[in-house]
Amino acid sequence: MQSLIAAAEAALDAAGAAIRPHFRAGVLSDDKSDESPVTIADQQAEQILREILIEKFPDFGILGEEFPDHNTGKKYVWVIDPIDGTRAFITGRLTFCTLLGLLEDGIPILGFIDQPITRERWRGGRNLPTSFTGPLGGTIGPRPVTNLAHAELSSTAPEMFTPEAAARFARLQAAARRVYWGGDAYAYGLLTLGQIDVVAEFGLKTWDWAALAPIIEAAGGTITDWSGEKLRLGCDGTALAAANSTLHAAALKALG
Amino acid sequence: MQSLIAAAEAALDAAGAAIRPHFRAGVLSDDKSDESPVTIADQQAEQILREILIEKFPDFGILGEEFPDHNTGKKYVWVIDPIDGTRAFITGRLTFCTLLGLLEDGIPILGFIDQPITRERWRGGRNLPTSFTGPLGGTIGPRPVTNLAHAELSSTAPEMFTPEAAARFARLQAAARRVYWGGDAYAYGLLTLGQIDVVAEFGLKTWDWAALAPIIEAAGGTITDWSGEKLRLGCDGTALAAANSTLHAAALKALG
Repeated sequence: MQSLIAAAEAALDAAGAAIRPHFRAGVLSDDKSDESPVTIADQQAEQILREILIEKFPDFGILGEEFPDHNTGKKYVWVIDPIDGTRAFITGRLTFCTLLGLLEDGIPILGFIDQPITRERWRGGRNLPTSFTGPLGGTIGPRPVTNLAHAELSSTAPEMFTPEAAARFARLQAAARRVYWGGDAYAYGLLTLGQIDVVAEFGLKTWDWAALAPIIEAAGGTITDWSGEKLRLGCDGTALAAANSTLHAAALKALG
Repeated sequence: MQSLIAAAEAALDAAGAAIRPHFRAGVLSDDKSDESPVTIADQQAEQILREILIEKFPDFGILGEEFPDHNTGKKYVWVIDPIDGTRAFITGRLTFCTLLGLLEDGIPILGFIDQPITRERWRGGRNLPTSFTGPLGGTIGPRPVTNLAHAELSSTAPEMFTPEAAARFARLQAAARRVYWGGDAYAYGLLTLGQIDVVAEFGLKTWDWAALAPIIEAAGGTITDWSGEKLRLGCDGTALAAANSTLHAAALKALG
């Protein structure tokens, strides 16, 4: 486990170094078929992560956003989102993150959230209590809020919901204290720091959640899909994270 | 003007030093009558700004969010929002800012946007081309985008609109390339860095816009209310900022 963590962190260091020169540097974006923006930084960072991880762990598969699957039938599969929040990246915001997760038989067991501009990083997973490093403050500790009416809710954008999902989210929003839109994966990191209490999202891909689930759980939080099932390969792309299991149950009930 | 700027920046340095210990430190929030959160940091920062500015400029008035008006009948009035984006602050996000503007006969002529955690600061106004300092990258230069369909749009939250305003914003959103929610005053700073092209907001108070208008204009951008009128004391609390006058005209037309 220690060698896994060291290799992953070294790979993230290298990816971050590739990303930084493109931030707020007028990078042009292309639209992919799903209309999400892709930047040069996105592709360079994933290429670097793949090269380092394949060299260090030749028996592991790789599943990433920007390039084809590599040996994803293996027991252990790295899952890469080189820039989660490309829209945030393109607009110069500090909420985009590089995400790296590790699946064991499709179940996420280790995750990293890295913000290469602010130099903030979270890591956590099985037998690895979530830790956070960075120069801007914050310590690990989800809040003991159990009343949904007192909970700070976060989600990336109302536009990502289908009408049915929007109606379910609206019920959760009405039951929570407040919602703050925007944040991408960074919001899950803020949950582990006791700043946000509930995050609910829809339409996630494997690379969006694989890194997040181990970090939330290893910080003492709870994360499932909107049906209350653990996130694993093939799940439906909904995610509900909460600071503790009591609050999670209340949020799940509000979602209906 | 140089002494004004130096004094304002020294006051912001002191306010930032008061804010930093409270960031991501479990600060409790109260609800004011308008339901916006207030933190200890908010009040301390405004008190410090007031004390320094009153001592240096005894003939100027002060209009701030947290405390009563002070000599606001004077020709020159400082306008203070100690923490713009208290919701962002409370949830540990880096988009809250300290705003300081100067009105001359009700017209904003000088502004500062300060982010005390990332140590980013914008200043600009009459005869003072907007400048930006900070360790995370970015240079002043709004984008030459003139086609609204290519423009990145930003606004803080859909919940701030009345139904009529929401309908107008929806037309603007439909005409723009994309919207990103969240950002508070920081989004106006990103506009001057060429990262965002249009910001539209509703329900602003004097302290929300007084610092922003001089910074947008002195960077080459355009900012008015949703009727196309310059922002000045007594304006209606709508704001539409754009990277250039052509794009602003297109956005104004889309808002209807």
